[in-house]
Amino acid sequence: MDNARSYPLNAWYAAAWVQEVGRSLSKRKICGQDIVLYRRTDGEVAALEDACWHRLLPLSLGFLRGDEVVCGYHGLVFNPAGRCTYMPAQQTINPSACVKAYPVVERHRLVWIWPGDPALADPSTVPDFRWNDGTDFVGDGGTFYSLKCDYRLVIDNLMDLTHETYVHAGSIGDENITATPFDVTHTQSTATLTRWMIDIEPPPFWARQLGRPGVRVDRWQIVTFHLPSVVDGDVGVAVTGTGAPQGDRSQGVNGHFLAAITPETDTSCHYFWNFVRNYRRDDEELTRALTLGHVNNGKGIYDQDHVVLEAQQRAIESNPRSPFYNLNIDAGAMWSRRLIDEMIARELAGGHGQVRAAAE
Amino acid sequence: MDNARSYPLNAWYAAAWVQEVGRSLSKRKICGQDIVLYRRTDGEVAALEDACWHRLLPLSLGFLRGDEVVCGYHGLVFNPAGRCTYMPAQQTINPSACVKAYPVVERHRLVWIWPGDPALADPSTVPDFRWNDGTDFVGDGGTFYSLKCDYRLVIDNLMDLTHETYVHAGSIGDENITATPFDVTHTQSTATLTRWMIDIEPPPFWARQLGRPGVRVDRWQIVTFHLPSVVDGDVGVAVTGTGAPQGDRSQGVNGHFLAAITPETDTSCHYFWNFVRNYRRDDEELTRALTLGHVNNGKGIYDQDHVVLEAQQRAIESNPRSPFYNLNIDAGAMWSRRLIDEMIARELAGGHGQVRAAAE
Amino acid sequence: MDNARSYPLNAWYAAAWVQEVGRSLSKRKICGQDIVLYRRTDGEVAALEDACWHRLLPLSLGFLRGDEVVCGYHGLVFNPAGRCTYMPAQQTINPSACVKAYPVVERHRLVWIWPGDPALADPSTVPDFRWNDGTDFVGDGGTFYSLKCDYRLVIDNLMDLTHETYVHAGSIGDENITATPFDVTHTQSTATLTRWMIDIEPPPFWARQLGRPGVRVDRWQIVTFHLPSVVDGDVGVAVTGTGAPQGDRSQGVNGHFLAAITPETDTSCHYFWNFVRNYRRDDEELTRALTLGHVNNGKGIYDQDHVVLEAQQRAIESNPRSPFYNLNIDAGAMWSRRLIDEMIARELAGGHGQVRAAAE
Repeated sequence: MDNARSYPLNAWYAAAWVQEVGRSLSKRKICGQDIVLYRRTDGEVAALEDACWHRLLPLSLGFLRGDEVVCGYHGLVFNPAGRCTYMPAQQTINPSACVKAYPVVERHRLVWIWPGDPALADPSTVPDFRWNDGTDFVGDGGTFYSLKCDYRLVIDNLMDLTHETYVHAGSIGDENITATPFDVTHTQSTATLTRWMIDIEPPPFWARQLGRPGVRVDRWQIVTFHLPSVVDGDVGVAVTGTGAPQGDRSQGVNGHFLAAITPETDTSCHYFWNFVRNYRRDDEELTRALTLGHVNNGKGIYDQDHVVLEAQQRAIESNPRSPFYNLNIDAGAMWSRRLIDEMIARELAGGHGQVRAAAE
Repeated sequence: MDNARSYPLNAWYAAAWVQEVGRSLSKRKICGQDIVLYRRTDGEVAALEDACWHRLLPLSLGFLRGDEVVCGYHGLVFNPAGRCTYMPAQQTINPSACVKAYPVVERHRLVWIWPGDPALADPSTVPDFRWNDGTDFVGDGGTFYSLKCDYRLVIDNLMDLTHETYVHAGSIGDENITATPFDVTHTQSTATLTRWMIDIEPPPFWARQLGRPGVRVDRWQIVTFHLPSVVDGDVGVAVTGTGAPQGDRSQGVNGHFLAAITPETDTSCHYFWNFVRNYRRDDEELTRALTLGHVNNGKGIYDQDHVVLEAQQRAIESNPRSPFYNLNIDAGAMWSRRLIDEMIARELAGGHGQVRAAAE
Repeated sequence: MDNARSYPLNAWYAAAWVQEVGRSLSKRKICGQDIVLYRRTDGEVAALEDACWHRLLPLSLGFLRGDEVVCGYHGLVFNPAGRCTYMPAQQTINPSACVKAYPVVERHRLVWIWPGDPALADPSTVPDFRWNDGTDFVGDGGTFYSLKCDYRLVIDNLMDLTHETYVHAGSIGDENITATPFDVTHTQSTATLTRWMIDIEPPPFWARQLGRPGVRVDRWQIVTFHLPSVVDGDVGVAVTGTGAPQGDRSQGVNGHFLAAITPETDTSCHYFWNFVRNYRRDDEELTRALTLGHVNNGKGIYDQDHVVLEAQQRAIESNPRSPFYNLNIDAGAMWSRRLIDEMIARELAGGHGQVRAAAE
C-alpha cells in the first residue's frame, strides 16, 4: 500500500450540486487538483484544470466568452476540451498548449467529476445515488466544503452508527444501538451494515417522525458503502409486530441519509449530504425542519459529527505513528477501508481500479 | 547532546493551579504530550493521555462519569489508571486497551505532572516552591499558557536580572543593577545568582513598597534555579546600614518572584508565576495592585518580558544557525542550561535524570 | 543555476522612501535579511542587522541613543558601523561583538541598501531612477510592502504590457496593444521592449490625459529593465502625424511608470512604484487623481495587478513542478530573467555579479 495516496483517482466524485454550476467560473479542489467549473451555452458542464498553460494563473480568475474561458492575465483562450484557441500577439498556436479537461456527468442532482485518466471514465459507473433524485424520496441537503479531515474518517463515522449513542444522544442516539448486534456483508465494491432493533422505544427523533405516541417500534439501519466514497443509509422505524423486518414497512416511516464524500486533499474533503424521506413529502416545513436538524449553526446532528471529525484529524496529525485499534463495531468501516485500499492498489498496479458491476 | 530534545521528561512539571482542576475535563499539552486532567470524586486529581485508545479522539471532548472518562465518540470508558472498562457492543475488553496515566501531585497550590516514566516518579522530588503556599508569604499569581518561546528563554530571562535595567526601566530596573557585581554558585541541581546593591536609592517600585521616603537602601536579588525549570527569586530592600547583608531584614521588605516554567512544545511553554511578599499580608488592595503591576493587559512587568521573549524565539527560528554569544551577566543562565543539558544527557543515557537531594 | 537563490545579493535595492526613515528605529526584511534602519544625528541613514549579537533580540525593539542603537533586552549598544560599544556589567568589550552594517545610499527619493558584500558596494551603480527625482517629472507613488510574490513575477508583469488588455481593460488596456508588434533589445544589464501603436484611438486613460477629444494618436511603450530589479516605463501618446515616433513629442503627453522591486524573501517582495508625468506638473489635484488611479483600496490599476501576482505565486507553490511556458509576448521578461540568472551565476562563481556601465 502506498501511504502517499489515500484515494483512487479513477472514480467519479461529487463536485457540486447541479444548481451551483452556472454561467460563471467556479473553482473546486478535488483529489489535490484545482479545477474550474462552468456551464456551456448548451447547458452542459465543463471542467478544466484551474491553471493557465502559460503562467499558471487560475483560470477561475478569468471570464467566460461563449463556451470558452479567457485567462484574466494575458487573454489566452481555452475551449471546453482544454485546448488553447487564442494566444495574444501571435498567429500560430502551440498545439501542445492545453489544460487538462475533466470528464463530467450530471446525475442525481449532483455534478460528478473524474480526476483520473479520462480514457477510463465510464458514465455508467457513477455511484447509485437515486434516493437523491427528488422523486420517491424528498429532502434538501447541503455540503460541507473543505471539511478538515481525511474523507475516510467520514466513512468510518457513517459505517458505524454506534457513535449516535454518544455523539447524538437525545435525538437519534440511545443505548439500543449499542446493545443490538449487527451484520456486515460485502461485495467487491460495497460493504453493508445491517442492524434491526426489535420492539424498542423509539428515540426522540423517530418518535416525532412516526407521530404515534406510545407505540413501540422496530428500528432499522441498513448502511451501504459504495466504492470509493458514497454511503447510503436506509433508516427508519415501523410499529413493532407489523412485519417490517420481513419487508412490510407500511406501518412505518423511512428515510435515507446520503453522503458523497470527495477528497479535497489528504487531510480535507467535501461532504455532500442529504437526508430524504418517503413520508409527508409535500410538507415543506418538515423539509426545512429536517435540514435544520442536521445542520443548524453548530447545533445540528452533522455539526456534532464535524466537531468530532476535525478533532480526530488533528489528533491523527499530532500522533502520526499511533495505529488505529479496532473494535467489533468497526467491521463496516474496516471493510470499506479494505475495499478502498484494494482499489488504490489495483490502480497503482496499472489497472483501472474500479470493479465492474458484473464482477461483483 | 541531542538537539531534538530540549527538556527532561523524568521530572515534575507544573500543569495547573489547584483551583483550575475540578469535576470537568480540562486539557493541557506538556512536553509535547496531550493530557486531560480532572478531579475524581474523592478529590484526587487524575491525568490521562488525551487521545482515545480506539480512534484517537481527544478524551477531553468526552465527559466524566463518576471517576471515569467516557469518550465522546463511541463511548469507550477509561478509569483513572488509564484502563478501558467499557467498549461498545462487546463483552470482552481487550486487556491492552489503555491510555497512559500520569503521576500527579498537588503541592504548593499547583498540580504537578510527571510526563516521563511513571515508575520513576517520586513525590519527594517535587520542586521546593514553599513560598507559594500562601502562609508566610502571600500573593496571587497567574499563568501564561502557551507562551510562544522555548522554556529555557524564560529561565535565561529570570537568571539574569540585568535585563530589568532595560526592559523594566521606571519600575524595578535602574543602572544600579548593571553596575553591581554578582556571584553565581551552583550545586548539581541548582544555580544561584546573588547580587547585593549597598546604599543605593531604591527604584520606584521598591521605594513604594518600603514606604519610607528619602531613605537609602540595601537591595538584594538572590535568584535560584531548581532543575529542571523552577526559579525562585528572593528580592527586597532594607534601610541601608541596618544589617540586611548580614541577615537582619527587619528594617526592610521582602518578596519572592516565583516561576514554574513547563515546556509545552519545543517552542512554547506554560509560565506559572507569582509574586509573594511577607509585609502588609492582609492588604488585599496591595495584593491586587501587585498582580496588576505584573500583568496588566500588556502594560505589566511580565507583559514587557513576554514581548521580548516571543520576539527572541521568532529571531532564533529565523536565524537557526546563529550561535548565542555569552556575556559575564549570563553566568547564572549558563549554569542553569548546563544543569539542564546534563540532566537530559543522563536521561538519554538510560538513567533517571534527576539528581537526588542527597547527592547535592 | 542554483535554484535556492532567486536574487543577487551584490546589488542596490530600494529599502524605503527617504521620508520614511527618521529618528526612530524601523525594520525591513531584504533578501531574507532582517535590517533595522534609522537616521543618524547628522542626517545620514544607518542600516544594521536587526538581531543583537548577544541573544538575537531584534534591535528594532530597542531605542536610539544619539547615533547608536541600544538593545531593548540587556542594553548592549551598537554604533552605526555595527560595532558594540557597551556591554552591561563588564569593562572589556569582546572585539568580535559586531552586527552587520549595510552600505546605504539615498538617491532619487529612495533609500538604497546593499545586502551583499559591503566591500563591493559602489554608489555609482545605484540604478538610474532619475525620473523619480521630482524635477522634470512629478508624481507621488507608494510601496506595496510584503507583496506575496517572487519579485520576478512583478518584472514579468511590467516587461509584458500585453496584460493591460486583460487585467486593465477599460483604463489603459485595449486590443491595440495585443495587436501591435514590438521589439526587444538588450545590453548586458538592461532589456528594453519598444512598442509603437500608430494612428489609433487612445484608450480612456490617455484620452483624458491628452484632453483633445476625438483626435487619433500615436501611443508608445518603451519599457526598460535594469539589473537586477528596476523597471522604467516611458509611456505616452501624441497626436498622430506630428512626429512622435521620430522624436517630436511636443504634441503629446508623456509619463513614466517606475518600479523598484526588492526581494523580501523568495516568495515576497517590496514593490516601490511611482507614476510621474511631465505635463500639468503643478496640478496637485491631477497628482492625487493619478495616485488614486493606481492604488485605490483595491480598485486601482496596481491593485488589479496584485490580485493577479499573488494568485500566480500561490499557483506556482501548489504546482511546484510545472514549467512556465513562454509566448512571443514574453520576450522582454525572458531577457530580464536571463540577465538576472547570469548575474546570480557570476555572483555564485565568486565574482561581483554587477556589470559595469563601461562593459555594456
